Amino acid sequence: MMTSLGPNRHLIGRAPDLVARELATPALVIDLDAFQANLAKMADLVGSAGGKVRPHAKAHKSSLIGRRQIEAGAVGLCCATVREAEVLAEAGLPGLLVTTPVVTPSMVARLVAAAEKADDFMVVVDSLTGVETLAEHARVSRPVGVLVDIDMGLGRDGLVDPAEAVALARRIDELPQLAYRGVQAYYGHLQHVKTLADRHAKIAEQWENLARFLETLGAAGLAPEIISGGGTGTHHLDLAHGPFTEIQPGSYLFMDKQYGEVEIAPGGSPFATSLTVAARVVSIAQPDRVIIDAGSKAVSTDYGPALLAKGAPDGATYQFMGDEHGAIRMPEGANRPPLGAIIELVAPHCDPTANLHDRFHVIQGGRLVDIWPIEARGY
Amino acid sequence: MMTSLGPNRHLIGRAPDLVARELATPALVIDLDAFQANLAKMADLVGSAGGKVRPHAKAHKSSLIGRRQIEAGAVGLCCATVREAEVLAEAGLPGLLVTTPVVTPSMVARLVAAAEKADDFMVVVDSLTGVETLAEHARVSRPVGVLVDIDMGLGRDGLVDPAEAVALARRIDELPQLAYRGVQAYYGHLQHVKTLADRHAKIAEQWENLARFLETLGAAGLAPEIISGGGTGTHHLDLAHGPFTEIQPGSYLFMDKQYGEVEIAPGGSPFATSLTVAARVVSIAQPDRVIIDAGSKAVSTDYGPALLAKGAPDGATYQFMGDEHGAIRMPEGANRPPLGAIIELVAPHCDPTANLHDRFHVIQGGRLVDIWPIEARGY
Repeated sequence: MMTSLGPNRHLIGRAPDLVARELATPALVIDLDAFQANLAKMADLVGSAGGKVRPHAKAHKSSLIGRRQIEAGAVGLCCATVREAEVLAEAGLPGLLVTTPVVTPSMVARLVAAAEKADDFMVVVDSLTGVETLAEHARVSRPVGVLVDIDMGLGRDGLVDPAEAVALARRIDELPQLAYRGVQAYYGHLQHVKTLADRHAKIAEQWENLARFLETLGAAGLAPEIISGGGTGTHHLDLAHGPFTEIQPGSYLFMDKQYGEVEIAPGGSPFATSLTVAARVVSIAQPDRVIIDAGSKAVSTDYGPALLAKGAPDGATYQFMGDEHGAIRMPEGANRPPLGAIIELVAPHCDPTANLHDRFHVIQGGRLVDIWPIEARGY
Repeated sequence: MMTSLGPNRHLIGRAPDLVARELATPALVIDLDAFQANLAKMADLVGSAGGKVRPHAKAHKSSLIGRRQIEAGAVGLCCATVREAEVLAEAGLPGLLVTTPVVTPSMVARLVAAAEKADDFMVVVDSLTGVETLAEHARVSRPVGVLVDIDMGLGRDGLVDPAEAVALARRIDELPQLAYRGVQAYYGHLQHVKTLADRHAKIAEQWENLARFLETLGAAGLAPEIISGGGTGTHHLDLAHGPFTEIQPGSYLFMDKQYGEVEIAPGGSPFATSLTVAARVVSIAQPDRVIIDAGSKAVSTDYGPALLAKGAPDGATYQFMGDEHGAIRMPEGANRPPLGAIIELVAPHCDPTANLHDRFHVIQGGRLVDIWPIEARGY
């Protein structure tokens, strides 16, 4: 079995030309300068707005990246899976919030075990069954924090009726092994609304929806301490005008094709692409294209073809060609990259692309400076 | 870190009701009876036709499954990645064939190292650079087998000119550290042509294309010993009328939504679905649907929504709802499955779905009889 650093570990710290020649591909690559700029920029924006950020670890599934986010001032990290929570808790990262309901007893038991290892651990619930299952596993000596999950028009998890939110919050509040902390109200479906104006109009409707919940909870003496929501696409509006005590962005670290098409903030995106998939030309047998070793098992297929970042001539386009390959179609008259040349792709969608890989290859000035395991991928 | 058998290992051999209650989800599941029937059926079909099969391991990336295929009579296994070849060679499986060109020196070195561990190891090439790079790493005392890769209209890897195939074959034949074994001629793009008649017409054109190569190679004294090609969708025609000495099917073990729409053989498919993703209902807060914990990180997104296999009422449909969730939309008047209920999905496409997971959960009669690691996933 491969070690967790994989087949490129011997290239760490070596000369850029050796890395260019020898890097095993496809390889998920982080441009460290762009990554650090994104990390710092979000910290600045949140700080200037007097807000808080609990970044979503589903984007990277890596404890090393999570730790950097905490060091940059994040109050904690959001987790989409039990495995993410387990891995980040094992690394001792504080303020973990499991952002979608878990109801299977064996999985709730794992969450409670993770909560023993890391401070200020929270989960969301949207059912009384969820509350009771959690209460069966949690201990009075170390209560698990709970947020009531509110639907913000996404139509996925989350309550639609404020009275139900009160009933849940009250029950959580009664149980000594649970600690009622507030609400989560996430509008994932509005993150990619293309113009800022349209997005503002749509999320403002949901702020009104949330206001009904907050009023009803307040009137019942259950005003939330934490109101968690928002993401990369809405962060500007959330920080300036939103009802949240904290935001949950994930993609801002990496960016992708999908966010590249969104007007994220006035004057352009504060975040730059830092994540690419490095592939190599492995066949030049066809006249109008070259074939690279990155296909649907290296790049997510949920938002059309990948964009070309580096290595291909202007006007070239990427096309999926099966599990492990893609074609770079050449514009007329362009020189084809030679066999073995590296071509870098921008992912259509960063989260599921990172999930296909086992490690990030961290590049700075052409040098492979580190390899970060994506140790919370999978189930 | 999780062991390779994952969070469900304690359920192996336990009572079906406990498995139903406790199985951590999403979990990739193999129905062992259907799987074994598919395995046996392909062996029968190939045997009756007097053919050979070298199944494609890209579908499962598992040495335990590969071993079962060898035990069922396969002459070897095809590999799509260096990692697949490494893992299967480490397990001592014979007859490995790397089905797409590898040209990076570090990766070619890994292939040659794998070839030292397993008998009858072969790779394909479609460039002189590929041949020379391989020759630089291979040893005269243990020659690496080589197939010349021929394009069959797929437009990916593979030569389009018979004269080039002769040049490559001749050069391979000259080099004592390489062994010229024949050709690969794969038409992946024709596997899913819906009707048998259309598929037959399209592949017959490619058989003519291949005949030109075979003639030219024969005239040059380089007649191939091995002619490898074909897949699950074309296996019936390949075995009955095709030019191949062996076929390379992968999906026949599992089947999926995509192959479910294809007329694979006269009288219906000889293979049944054996692979599903088991998910659980985690939210019932919305009136017209339930939410399950399987989204785009548990089920491939390259062929539309998943089909519902078990657990949901007739007429219900699956819709992706982000990385980790899906909605099961209920037909009017249907009873909604309760919180915690297991819903099984048929993958839109089996290969990239298996690649999202770390292990197969092998079920027989409701019992979890084994867990098989997908140890060759990733890079």
